[in-house]
Amino acid sequence: MKPELQRIPQATTKRLPLYYRFIQNFFNAGQKRVSSQELSDAMKIDSATIRRDFSHFGALGKKGYGYDVAHLLNFFRQTLDQDEATNVALIGVGSLGTAFLKYNFQKNHNTKIVIAFDTKAPVEGVVKSDIPMFNPSVLEEKLLEYGIEIVIFTVPSRSAQDLADRLVKTGIKGILNFAPVRLTVPDHIRVQSIDLSVELQTLIYQIRNE
Amino acid sequence: MKPELQRIPQATTKRLPLYYRFIQNFFNAGQKRVSSQELSDAMKIDSATIRRDFSHFGALGKKGYGYDVAHLLNFFRQTLDQDEATNVALIGVGSLGTAFLKYNFQKNHNTKIVIAFDTKAPVEGVVKSDIPMFNPSVLEEKLLEYGIEIVIFTVPSRSAQDLADRLVKTGIKGILNFAPVRLTVPDHIRVQSIDLSVELQTLIYQIRNE
Repeated sequence: MKPELQRIPQATTKRLPLYYRFIQNFFNAGQKRVSSQELSDAMKIDSATIRRDFSHFGALGKKGYGYDVAHLLNFFRQTLDQDEATNVALIGVGSLGTAFLKYNFQKNHNTKIVIAFDTKAPVEGVVKSDIPMFNPSVLEEKLLEYGIEIVIFTVPSRSAQDLADRLVKTGIKGILNFAPVRLTVPDHIRVQSIDLSVELQTLIYQIRNE
Repeated sequence: MKPELQRIPQATTKRLPLYYRFIQNFFNAGQKRVSSQELSDAMKIDSATIRRDFSHFGALGKKGYGYDVAHLLNFFRQTLDQDEATNVALIGVGSLGTAFLKYNFQKNHNTKIVIAFDTKAPVEGVVKSDIPMFNPSVLEEKLLEYGIEIVIFTVPSRSAQDLADRLVKTGIKGILNFAPVRLTVPDHIRVQSIDLSVELQTLIYQIRNE
């Protein structure tokens, strides 16, 4: 059963998978207990933030003792639903898409790209990096057939909105968008955009203004 | 001359390159004025946030008139220092690194990968996607020779910290890190980390908890 969660701030939510990964590292290293300060040193997040974040999940730690690693790991695993497998579709197999196909989230055994789409692919499909790749002309039927809810969107900017419009007619709930355009989709679809060139510009701007 | 900027919140800083890109779109479309509401619709950021962000740069807009697009564009260009070219090094030319080399920030004419490093490359260098690629054994000398201040870090996790340690001895000021590890570097080096699998897990988590 999933833990009962109150409304958690967005910033905390964003750190959950990171907490999960670091707690897993402590667990794998055989450590039984971990303090917020140790987590802070490992994660480069200040310990007050960690304690505040953890308070949203209920009292998990004891003063002078720290947090129980196995308990934390179990808690985050349940919370993040890591036990439930997530099948993902990759739309757009250019150079960035190819990188995703090859990497295919090896460290997250429960998250996997199971189908890909690219204009280079024939309608009947081919296999690329062990994954079936189809032409976007069969996008809707294949997404439904594979029961896909999450897509990674590595398509050219010019075709991004048209493809997003077509996703609306499928069971898609989330888009991890790498196209450097803002997508207009209905409220029931969540878009997480990562613009790599904006990330780079932001870094340059910050360095120049320090 | 660069505009005099007061201390701008980190969240606002992060949106600056995005504002720049959207204002550029309005400018290219021949639009003279833009309201915070129009920007809000285009960018999917609420208009109150936009007005608050802009207030940090001084009064740039007039009530009932909106913002002058050419003025805004000029302001953001100066602020983001887009006129100054930034040469970037790419460290690690695996599948993600190759995607960066091929893309090479075509839309940001002033930001360019000018040198790459990979263990596959010989010490004397080869050319890949028009960019000289060297063996990491000559990392320090080549970074100094090319006057590099920013690196894109697409290296395997196991070698990330060792390579980061070596960057400390060069003139590097910023690392755009894609290795799914937290890097320990001195305070004068800024690290911006993007963990693609954490981004995906976060999206999945948010969808499951809505």
